[in-house]
Amino acid sequence: MPGGLLTDLYELNMAASYLRRGMDRTATFSLFVRGLPKARGFLVAAGLESCLELLESFSFTGVELEALGSMGFDDRALSDFSTLRFQGEVWAVPEGRIVYSEEPVLEVTAPIAIAQLVETVLLNQITLHTTLASKAARYAIAAEGRRLVEFAFRRTHGLEAAMAVARASALAGFTATSNVEAASRYGLDVAGTMAHSFIESFPTEGEAFRAFAEDHPGRTTFLVDTYDTLGGVRAAIDTIHDLGLGGELGVRLDSGDLDALARGARALLDDAGLTHAHIFASGGLDELEVHELVRAGAPVDAFGIGTQLGVSADAPYIDSVYKLVEFGGRAVMK
Amino acid sequence: MPGGLLTDLYELNMAASYLRRGMDRTATFSLFVRGLPKARGFLVAAGLESCLELLESFSFTGVELEALGSMGFDDRALSDFSTLRFQGEVWAVPEGRIVYSEEPVLEVTAPIAIAQLVETVLLNQITLHTTLASKAARYAIAAEGRRLVEFAFRRTHGLEAAMAVARASALAGFTATSNVEAASRYGLDVAGTMAHSFIESFPTEGEAFRAFAEDHPGRTTFLVDTYDTLGGVRAAIDTIHDLGLGGELGVRLDSGDLDALARGARALLDDAGLTHAHIFASGGLDELEVHELVRAGAPVDAFGIGTQLGVSADAPYIDSVYKLVEFGGRAVMK
Repeated sequence: MPGGLLTDLYELNMAASYLRRGMDRTATFSLFVRGLPKARGFLVAAGLESCLELLESFSFTGVELEALGSMGFDDRALSDFSTLRFQGEVWAVPEGRIVYSEEPVLEVTAPIAIAQLVETVLLNQITLHTTLASKAARYAIAAEGRRLVEFAFRRTHGLEAAMAVARASALAGFTATSNVEAASRYGLDVAGTMAHSFIESFPTEGEAFRAFAEDHPGRTTFLVDTYDTLGGVRAAIDTIHDLGLGGELGVRLDSGDLDALARGARALLDDAGLTHAHIFASGGLDELEVHELVRAGAPVDAFGIGTQLGVSADAPYIDSVYKLVEFGGRAVMK
Repeated sequence: MPGGLLTDLYELNMAASYLRRGMDRTATFSLFVRGLPKARGFLVAAGLESCLELLESFSFTGVELEALGSMGFDDRALSDFSTLRFQGEVWAVPEGRIVYSEEPVLEVTAPIAIAQLVETVLLNQITLHTTLASKAARYAIAAEGRRLVEFAFRRTHGLEAAMAVARASALAGFTATSNVEAASRYGLDVAGTMAHSFIESFPTEGEAFRAFAEDHPGRTTFLVDTYDTLGGVRAAIDTIHDLGLGGELGVRLDSGDLDALARGARALLDDAGLTHAHIFASGGLDELEVHELVRAGAPVDAFGIGTQLGVSADAPYIDSVYKLVEFGGRAVMK
């Protein structure tokens, strides 16, 4: 866990002044979102858990104090920093609850230097998790009960954000993630099938399907759009029949006109007696496209959601602020 | 550093099939960007260093293999995974170079199971760093030589992304960062002054300025827009004169009509004999706004750039892919 350097320089500049001057009275800072992103009516609060972890471990190691010394902080400031730990109160909206603009998500009441120093990480974490949980909730609403699987790992802003989107989407109702580390860490269901490269590594699509089904029996989803999508569905059906496959079966559509292809695939599967086989759709879908498919009655059972969720592409940040509202009993909200 | 679980489940499914079938021939995967973001003519390649670190540490710990067992991988697969290390060749564009769409940024040639398993982290890291470096380069061009300071920490998608934006923006020509940990880690210059809350913690703006200047002499930038911006400039001038302050001096404008306020502040500072005092502007600026201010001749010496850079708000991701181009000497690009 991080030390005290995980902050902007100005927090340290201000804290040094407060400490040097004996300004240790209690301040209350409020973290809220000033304005909602365009076309958003609400946010889903998230990130509290990691904020509390960061507050609990907040301190400066010897190496960190040395680094601050080399940046120009004097011995007095370093000595003041060396004993700091988080002591104060945190009030917060529980994760997963709806919040609106101007409504406090989290409030910190602590000696002003400490409350100031933790601003940057609190904003960073609440912004990340709340942005992602809010976007995920929009998918959950749009999907009207169909299953949602989080596929964002390759597009997120680093590995930490990949873990955050798996966690936040689970909080908002997603049923599984493709992220193996996140599934292991948070106890989530994990899902995934094969890539186009797997199909291309075999001489024919049918041979690739057969190999995969032999190796992963009991739960097989065939990626059918490498060459010709409905041809791929037919090859999947042949493989299922040839191998007498049971268990959970499905096809995944990753490109093209998903509504038309889902209807075509459904008809082929039903004609082959595979009414229980699922249709899984993916391919850069935003929540409005998911809702359009659902409302049109496309026979899609589950959606894989990646880029547009993981970087919450239409609203990559929220306008969160951490405002001093009270200091030493004096109201000071700007 | 991460182990083998930092991947999507389907990579492991495919790798298990390849390994089980003795498919160990060499494959070449190419990582490139399919289409540039809207209004982008080029990208700046970045992320190679972290990719190489991840490849060097790639392996499965005992605990990770246990986790995979509980997700359904059989003993044969776990045994195959247990010995894997990255062995192969990486060809890449050096960090900081311009790349275009469809142009390989990185190519991996390795036994197909290994080349497949590393897809997710390679895409994740190249996407993150390249997105940020490309955005930062746009600011560097727009600023036409004026100084740029990276202020994005509070808005980035987590702490890892905060470090990445500090690094990527330095690569593209930014002169400093507000992120203390990143400055310490990468040897960057660090910059920062005070927040509005600091001003509010004192009975008057003048007292806050005086306290700050006393505690941080030699390099003082006054945040002047808490109550009335040009009034704040006058209070800063009074403080500079009262304390006989030398060294680097400046005022920071964080809101309002930056062009008009910069001209007003410049006139007041010059009239007070402070022609050497800098004007620093910030407040959610995108690169087009920076360019507009520069082209209009606004007397701004340096810009602080946060949200719009750190989450590359207009283009939060790039359409990067990792395509199998050759397997066992056979060209297979889809």
